[in-house]
This record gives sequence, C-alpha cells and structure tokens, in this order.
Amino acid sequence: MRTVIRHVDLISVNPEPIFTSQVHLGIEGERIAFVLPADSPEAERRLADFAAQRTISGAGKLAMPGLVNTHTHVGMSILRNYGSDLNLQDWLHTKVFPSEAQLVAEDIHWAGLLEMAEMIRSGTTGFIDMYFFPEEGAANIVSSGLRAKLSHNIIDLTFGPGGVDYQTIFPRFRNFHKEWDGWEGRLKIMALVHSTYLPPLAALRDMGEFIQAEKLAVHTHMHETAIEITDSLQKYGKRPIALAEELGLFSPRTVVAHCVHLDDDDRRILAARGVHVAHCPSSNLKLASGIANLEAMLQAGVNLSLGTDGASSNNNLNMFEELHLAAILQKGAWGDPRLQPASQMLQLATRQAALALEMDPELGTLKEGAPADLILLDTDAAHWVPRNDPIAAVVYTAQGSDVDTVMVAGQILMEGRELKTIDEEQAKWQTRRIAKGILG
Amino acid sequence: MRTVIRHVDLISVNPEPIFTSQVHLGIEGERIAFVLPADSPEAERRLADFAAQRTISGAGKLAMPGLVNTHTHVGMSILRNYGSDLNLQDWLHTKVFPSEAQLVAEDIHWAGLLEMAEMIRSGTTGFIDMYFFPEEGAANIVSSGLRAKLSHNIIDLTFGPGGVDYQTIFPRFRNFHKEWDGWEGRLKIMALVHSTYLPPLAALRDMGEFIQAEKLAVHTHMHETAIEITDSLQKYGKRPIALAEELGLFSPRTVVAHCVHLDDDDRRILAARGVHVAHCPSSNLKLASGIANLEAMLQAGVNLSLGTDGASSNNNLNMFEELHLAAILQKGAWGDPRLQPASQMLQLATRQAALALEMDPELGTLKEGAPADLILLDTDAAHWVPRNDPIAAVVYTAQGSDVDTVMVAGQILMEGRELKTIDEEQAKWQTRRIAKGILG
Repeated sequence: MRTVIRHVDLISVNPEPIFTSQVHLGIEGERIAFVLPADSPEAERRLADFAAQRTISGAGKLAMPGLVNTHTHVGMSILRNYGSDLNLQDWLHTKVFPSEAQLVAEDIHWAGLLEMAEMIRSGTTGFIDMYFFPEEGAANIVSSGLRAKLSHNIIDLTFGPGGVDYQTIFPRFRNFHKEWDGWEGRLKIMALVHSTYLPPLAALRDMGEFIQAEKLAVHTHMHETAIEITDSLQKYGKRPIALAEELGLFSPRTVVAHCVHLDDDDRRILAARGVHVAHCPSSNLKLASGIANLEAMLQAGVNLSLGTDGASSNNNLNMFEELHLAAILQKGAWGDPRLQPASQMLQLATRQAALALEMDPELGTLKEGAPADLILLDTDAAHWVPRNDPIAAVVYTAQGSDVDTVMVAGQILMEGRELKTIDEEQAKWQTRRIAKGILG
Repeated sequence: MRTVIRHVDLISVNPEPIFTSQVHLGIEGERIAFVLPADSPEAERRLADFAAQRTISGAGKLAMPGLVNTHTHVGMSILRNYGSDLNLQDWLHTKVFPSEAQLVAEDIHWAGLLEMAEMIRSGTTGFIDMYFFPEEGAANIVSSGLRAKLSHNIIDLTFGPGGVDYQTIFPRFRNFHKEWDGWEGRLKIMALVHSTYLPPLAALRDMGEFIQAEKLAVHTHMHETAIEITDSLQKYGKRPIALAEELGLFSPRTVVAHCVHLDDDDRRILAARGVHVAHCPSSNLKLASGIANLEAMLQAGVNLSLGTDGASSNNNLNMFEELHLAAILQKGAWGDPRLQPASQMLQLATRQAALALEMDPELGTLKEGAPADLILLDTDAAHWVPRNDPIAAVVYTAQGSDVDTVMVAGQILMEGRELKTIDEEQAKWQTRRIAKGILG
C-alpha cells in the first residue's frame, strides 16, 4: 500500500524535535518513503512517480511520531475509578488484590481491547505492558495493530510457596517467548519481575540467573516509594536498585517503572547499564509516592521515558496528559521554569521511548526509511489558536482528543477518529459487564 | 422556554457532590424547574404538566454543574505557546510586556471570543477575568452567554507618573461599573489591583480608599512567588497579604489569585475576611512559582477555588485539566493520597467557585429553583469505561473534550459540541491574524 499525506505540517524527532511547515509525506508498506517540502519541484515529481493508492489531506493537521507509553498494566481499566483517595496499602489490599484474584483470561481480552482503543484515540502507537494473562495481551496486540513489549511472569505471581517453578513456569515462558518475541517486528516479550520487595530473595536469585542465562528483557517496578527503600535496606542491607544490579536484572533491555527516589549511586547504576526508566507522574502524584527528579536522571545519562501506569492509578491512559504534566511538574517541583523544556519532553515521549521498545533503530523519527508510526493532530480547535511555537503547543496545549489519525507500521488504526482495528462498542459493553461482575 | 433533559445521570453539589442515577431534569427560563427520579410516577405527571418545548436525551450523558474558572486573563491567548521555558522576568520583559503594549481593543474582542469558545467547549460556565479593554470583555460576555466577573482598572496600568488619576480613571470606572455591574444577573464588575508590588504605595493607598468607599469587588494577584514576599518585607516591612489587609483590599468580594506561599497569619487574614483564593496549579508549576498547600488553606477556613490563569502560562483554558492536576498534585506534594479527595475538589471547582461569582446563592448546585448552569458530559468514550465511581471519574478521568452540552442561565451555549452563541471560525481566523501581526 502506498499512502501520501499531502500538505501537512510535521514534527520529526531525531534526537531533537524539528518542525517543518507543509510537507508531503509518503508511506510505502511499513515505512516512510519520503518527506519533501510541499512546494518543491522534487515533491511534485516524486508524487507523480509514487502513484499513491490512498491520499490523506494534511490541511489543519500536524504530523508527529506516535507517543510511546513505557509502563502500563493493560486490563486494569476494570478497576478504573474504584477505590480512590486511599492509602496505598489500603487500596492494594482492600481494592486491587481481591478484585484481581477474580480475573480470568476473557476479562483481559475485553478490557485490553478497550484500553488499546483508548490508547489509539489519545495518540499512543506503542506501549510496554505488565499484567495477567499475556496470551490475551499478545492476541490483542496482533489484532489492534499496535506495537508493544509484553511481560510474562517467570514466577508464581501470588509469591506463595510455589516460588520459582522451574518445571512449569520457565518452560511456559520459553514457549511464549519463542512464539511471540519479535512477531512481525512489533511485539517483544519481557520477563516480569514485579519488584525486589514481593518475591523472596531465593526466588529473585533464581529469576536473575534465568534472565542472565537467556539474556531476557526485564520489566520491573523500583524505588516507587520511600518505604520500599527503607525496607530493602533493613532486609538486605542495600537499596533495591543495588540489589537488582547484583541479581543481574539490569541491561539495556530492562525497563524500570517509577524511580521516584534515587541517589547518585542509583542513577549511576541505571545509566551504566543502559536501563530505561519509565517516569509515571500522574500515578506517582495520585498515590502520593513523590516526585522524581528528571534533570538529575538526565544529567547522569539515564534513558528516560514516560508512562501512564495502570488505568486504576491514573485514571486514564492519555499520554498527552502525562507529557504535559511531566513537563510542568519538574519546573514547579524544583523551582526552575527552564527545566525540561518542551523539546526535551517531546523527545522523551516519542523517540527516546520508542528506543525502549527495541524494535527498529529509526522508530520514533519521521524520515525516509523509518517505520511509519505517526499520528495526525487536528490543530484547528480553539485551544490551538494561535499555534505560535508548535513544539510548545504539543507539550503544553494539546489534548489526547486532538488526535485525528493514527498509523503504526504503515497501517491506519484510526482515521478521522474512527477506529479501524478494534470493535470498540463491543469492548466497552463487555468491559462494563466484567467490572459489574467483579465490583458489583 | 421549557427544556427537559430526560434519563440523565446527575451530580449535584451542595455542598458535597451527590450522584443520582437517571433523573429527568426540567429547566424553565433561567432556572431548574425540577429534578425527579426518572422512574417515579411523580416524574411522569410532572413531565406531562410541564409540556417541554425542547427535549434533550441524557442517554450516555452525565449532568453536572458547570466549572467556574476563578482566575484568567481573557485575551492572552494571543501569546499562547510564545516564549516557553524562560525565567519569569525574562518571559515578562522580553515576551509578554512588549507584545501587550501593542494590543488594541479589537484584539481583545476577537481573542476574547476565541477563549470563550474554548471555555465553553471544555465545560466552563463562569469565569473571573482580569485583562485589558474590559469594554470588549463586557460585550463578549453579553454575546457569548457566559457568566463572568470582569475587572476594570482604577489606576494607569503602566504604573507611570500618572498614578491614580482621580479625574479620569475613577469616573470611568464608576461609569463602567454603573453600566454593567449586575447586568442580567450574569456580569459583575471588579476593581483591578494587579498586586502590591507593581503600583507605588501612595497609589495603593488611594486605590484602597476608593475600594472601601465604594465597597468594590477586587481582583488581585498575591503571594505567587517567594521573591514577591521577600521584596515586600524589605520595602514595607510586611508581607503583601498583611499590607493588602491594612490597605482595605480584602472582603468576601475579593478574589486573590495564586497564594502559593502562605504562613498562618496570611491564611488567618484571608479566612477572616472571607476572601476567595484562586488556586492555579498549571501556571504555578509552569512558571516554577511553587505548590500551594490546599489542605492548610481549607483547614484555616479559606474560600478556595480553581483557575487556569491566562492561556499564555497554562497554555489552555481547560478547567478539567486544572481540576485533575489540583487533585493529584496535593497528594504527591504533601505525601498523603487521602488529601483533597475527589468530592472535595469537585466542590471547589463548581459550587465553591460559583459562590465567588456572587450572583445567586444557589449557583453551582443542581436543584429546583437554582440557576440552570450545567454541562452534559459524554460518558460513553473508552476512557470512561467502566465508570465505577462517577465523582472520581469526573476528577481523575474526564477530559474537557467530553463536554457535549453547556447551558448557562437556561440558555444553551453548546449542544452536541456545536457552539450556539459564538462564530468560532471567525474568532479563530481573526486571532491568528492578530497574533501574526504582533508576534510576526
């Protein structure tokens, strides 16, 4: 399929965001075929040769790389707006865990599709997931057309006496990994290591050995709360990040969510290992975990990106909200309006996060040869007038609802706000039914 | 005109938000005629007697009081996304002031209409404004159908040698006040006192005398930055709030924006005088002013509400974003997820803010006899599924773009996202032209 988006304004990101007014953007198969100034003779010739089969008007639109959500729990929408304003432990033990114990695979199928619809509608083209029933997740990723890194457990997630079950879980993981890792270039599989505080030490060691032996990608939560660090110091005499380093959990294939409370040693380890950190400001604020220091991580050379966390602690999956919040929160928290300028934040939410997916070295930039993962924003709404600096507008003004069209690997997932790959009405109906069944 | 909204879910706020599933809501003229359970025999009888001339379906919708924005600068959209990520003084002196010096009345007419369109689209039914050319503001408020409190200067706003010009500005203020204050119950006029740091002390004293003599409503900025307080202590030996109290600027008709940095005495003064504080978290973060402590203000008995500040430091006028941010920011900043629960924040953004408008004692609640200022949210979007707790959903999940219908004093300003009172295309075209003329 050859598609051309004509007369569109464009932000590409590689590594800095750069705005170009009025280009023609050609897409052939999964990749970008050309980006040419709309008024150039070369563009006219190229358009004629290209013989596009589909033409999209870029009038009043802005093309940019899709946002990549590097930490979420797809399926948790079932618990959206359930049990707000509670202490973390009360929320987990009286609301989350008892509800999650009732989940079956079909629930994740429907809630997962619902959340993928929500993500597409708000401009997300890729995500990094950690939840139950990854088989359902894989099937949903295949059918939705999104890109994802999906986590599969390597330990009994109840952390009961079963612990690391070499006989069943490791082989199951290996089969799942073999079946899906690298599928059509848009699905990767990670080992789920919840944290260093839930599994017992012996299990952590076994997981570390397995991960190192098989060179696995790892998805984990660390340093979300201050108490997590205090507890680890008391229990192990070291901070969770130091322990994880020792266990061999860290590599450039590792994604660590949160990292709210870090010291210089923590940042040094994360940077040296090339670990990707998913900063989740909405969830960190809502659960009162604290405010991560982005500038300190960036200065230390940490690979930083943004995540929504699950829909139950956010309470949506809107990466434009996360981008806006992350940008202004740092300025306010550390008292410097020059911190985390718009161009830097946009880079973290697109190009830098796309690298965490580890799929294609060009993913997250919009140039010839790069994968065609992009969104079109409708920039004609009142809140976009006047646009002035388009990069600032994307970070400080834009809404998830401005997303008009979403393309992943050249496939259109939404056009004119109409979803093309998900039966959204069915997903909504089923998810409502499931939530009612579990929560009453 | 008699309107009925049939089969709608409803949140009323008085003083606590209360959710009721499926009511019929009758509106006659400017006020709510009835709110009755949809399945009651009484509702059927009342509907028959009422003989509605207009029926709106509430299917998939949630009715709630409109949001009230208690601090903004309508017209500043011209500078939206212009000069981001700068130090406050650099931004003001190199970007804002030189641009504002070029503004003429017509600019405020068009940018004002644009911003009113933006406010209606994101569910705001009333606002408290402070900017140039209030004559244009009054005309726009009349034509848009919104409610507003509008500030008019009582001093030469260049703070040049003219100072307080009794011969021209006071009479001009009096005429403007006489013409518009109380207009059709939806416009009130305030005296603009920018702050205690810009005008010289003699002028502040003259303004204070005028305000006290004429019992005026006052709109001001105070304690936005820490340096403002340090400077005041150095210059006057007292904090701005103590100085303002001494000058007679405070009454229940006063709205003070920001109040980021307060001590116990400040809070005591604000509470004792019944002053309304407009908390503007997006602007306070973006300009790195700091994080206000809402719980301390509420404990002290301060009348608290929320504002967006101007579109140039926000960078939009979306009160749903402000409500969400205000709620989660307090939890994160002060380390307690129980702080500022959803029901409390919704109260501040609706009922409590409506009281700051000083128009009708029932404004901001949805019950028989109250003014019909309400919005319908489309709750069928993916991010609303499942809805679970509707009050939490409004605070943590809802988007400004979910607003489907807006009614102020019984007049429909938007229905099915179609604006009824503003020529939005013209306002957009003109505002783009104006911004290009000023900013290039």
